[in-house]
Amino acid sequence: MRKIVECVPNFSEGRRQEVIDQIAAAIATVPGVRVLDVQSDADHNRTVVTFVGEPATVEEAAFRGIEKAAELIDMNLHRGEHPRLGATDVVPFVPIENVTMEDCVALARRLGERVGRELEIPVYLYERAATCPERQNLANVRRGEYEGIKAEIATRPEREPDFGPRRVGKAGAIAIGARPPLIAFNVYLGTADVEVAQAIARAVRHSSGGLRYVKALGLLVKGRAQVSMNLTDYRQTPVHRVIEMIRREAERYGVSVVESELIGLTPNEALVEAAEFYLQLGSFSPDQILENRLADFMQQG
Amino acid sequence: MRKIVECVPNFSEGRRQEVIDQIAAAIATVPGVRVLDVQSDADHNRTVVTFVGEPATVEEAAFRGIEKAAELIDMNLHRGEHPRLGATDVVPFVPIENVTMEDCVALARRLGERVGRELEIPVYLYERAATCPERQNLANVRRGEYEGIKAEIATRPEREPDFGPRRVGKAGAIAIGARPPLIAFNVYLGTADVEVAQAIARAVRHSSGGLRYVKALGLLVKGRAQVSMNLTDYRQTPVHRVIEMIRREAERYGVSVVESELIGLTPNEALVEAAEFYLQLGSFSPDQILENRLADFMQQG
Repeated sequence: MRKIVECVPNFSEGRRQEVIDQIAAAIATVPGVRVLDVQSDADHNRTVVTFVGEPATVEEAAFRGIEKAAELIDMNLHRGEHPRLGATDVVPFVPIENVTMEDCVALARRLGERVGRELEIPVYLYERAATCPERQNLANVRRGEYEGIKAEIATRPEREPDFGPRRVGKAGAIAIGARPPLIAFNVYLGTADVEVAQAIARAVRHSSGGLRYVKALGLLVKGRAQVSMNLTDYRQTPVHRVIEMIRREAERYGVSVVESELIGLTPNEALVEAAEFYLQLGSFSPDQILENRLADFMQQG
Repeated sequence: MRKIVECVPNFSEGRRQEVIDQIAAAIATVPGVRVLDVQSDADHNRTVVTFVGEPATVEEAAFRGIEKAAELIDMNLHRGEHPRLGATDVVPFVPIENVTMEDCVALARRLGERVGRELEIPVYLYERAATCPERQNLANVRRGEYEGIKAEIATRPEREPDFGPRRVGKAGAIAIGARPPLIAFNVYLGTADVEVAQAIARAVRHSSGGLRYVKALGLLVKGRAQVSMNLTDYRQTPVHRVIEMIRREAERYGVSVVESELIGLTPNEALVEAAEFYLQLGSFSPDQILENRLADFMQQG
């Protein structure tokens, strides 16, 4: 049984293509690792790399990416809209096939220890790998961003890293963790009024009383109000429940959902669950999906 | 690139398990063929076998199944609720991976010729493999069933088979063809009034003015009204459009959809399309499904 872990590091560079290319290339140097996706955003000045492989190879590839980013990115010069802690900002490990969440937590800790020791970068373990409840939430770890952590790391007890020195260099600090697959889901509304999107974001997100595994912001994107979300555990809070709640809240403002989008890679299961809900499938099993039955067969030959 | 064809023969035996087992075993004797599913229905007295493999192996396996059924089933003794022509009633080939509809049509014709010649069973090519427009519709080929074809094959010109003799023995006749993947989809209504299901079936099915690729019947199943359907080309007539039309028609009778079910194997794409519709995904691509991106990677190792 092949074991597959996904790793989705975020790097604080979304503009200089040669830097992005070198980081992705460093990751891809590890045999057995497959880079599935590299997505850069110039406004955020940030790049998300998605790669997969067996646990040990993914660990080594993540290390090489972190090392290369630390060499090429100076956080003192970095500007961008997205909150960030360091040159490599976050490194989440995601269990995909024949791997448990516990395996990913162990992986995050091993990598964190090595990054702290060999690269002398402070490491904070977050989400499922967190060593205290406060750090389960990435927003807490990232509070104050690079500039804040630089000022406070040596003196404030709650800023003490899990690994590495209590000082921050030009590579900043890194959050390393483990989490379920995340779905980045944006919903566009039939209005240019960003306040409607903000009100709906407050209604659906966990932090202000909404659904348990939803993080949400109201934004204005290309002249349209957008509810921008991360669904952090789609098995517990499925996509259909989120969009139905948004539709109901939007109605109250006389606004409709115009369109939605999934950013990056989405697990097939999340889409199948939405189909099950809307088609009212009573006793559906993944065994009934032709491709699932073919999967074994395809791997033979 | 591996080529995969699916074959879904229907045999006129759904009660004698030893006969069913022998037919499935005959199919499975061909190396490289994988039997995915065997579903028998005692009321219909009929068994549906689903198997896959490379075109040449699937062709040989279908021949062996037909040969075994002809040996073990006497149509003069067969009674069942489902219309049927012969011991092997229909043999559709379905393109799955790296195979075109034209490949499946060629396959159907080669098999038909061999069955006519070696087994002396009359063969009618149907659906995409049909040699005249009339035979594209299986219902036309099967009109009068075994008893009707037996009486008329020698004399009526429109009953002349594509291959094999103009006489029918105890194995009856066979319809062999090619078609897109079929989805068997049943919708249960919140009423025990079968007439409501029948009226809705008339509204949605192609033959009485409804959607192009829908065949539908209204039935009473376990005390509940059911619209029982075959969706014969889900790419042209998607599942969500069918159930939305049923919901709207049911409303007119003050009835709701209580539940639905998919029978047998369903292509993943059909479910993803339903999710795209209901989640209003504006620019979704199958490339965004994690499993699709992993598929290559998994096959390497």
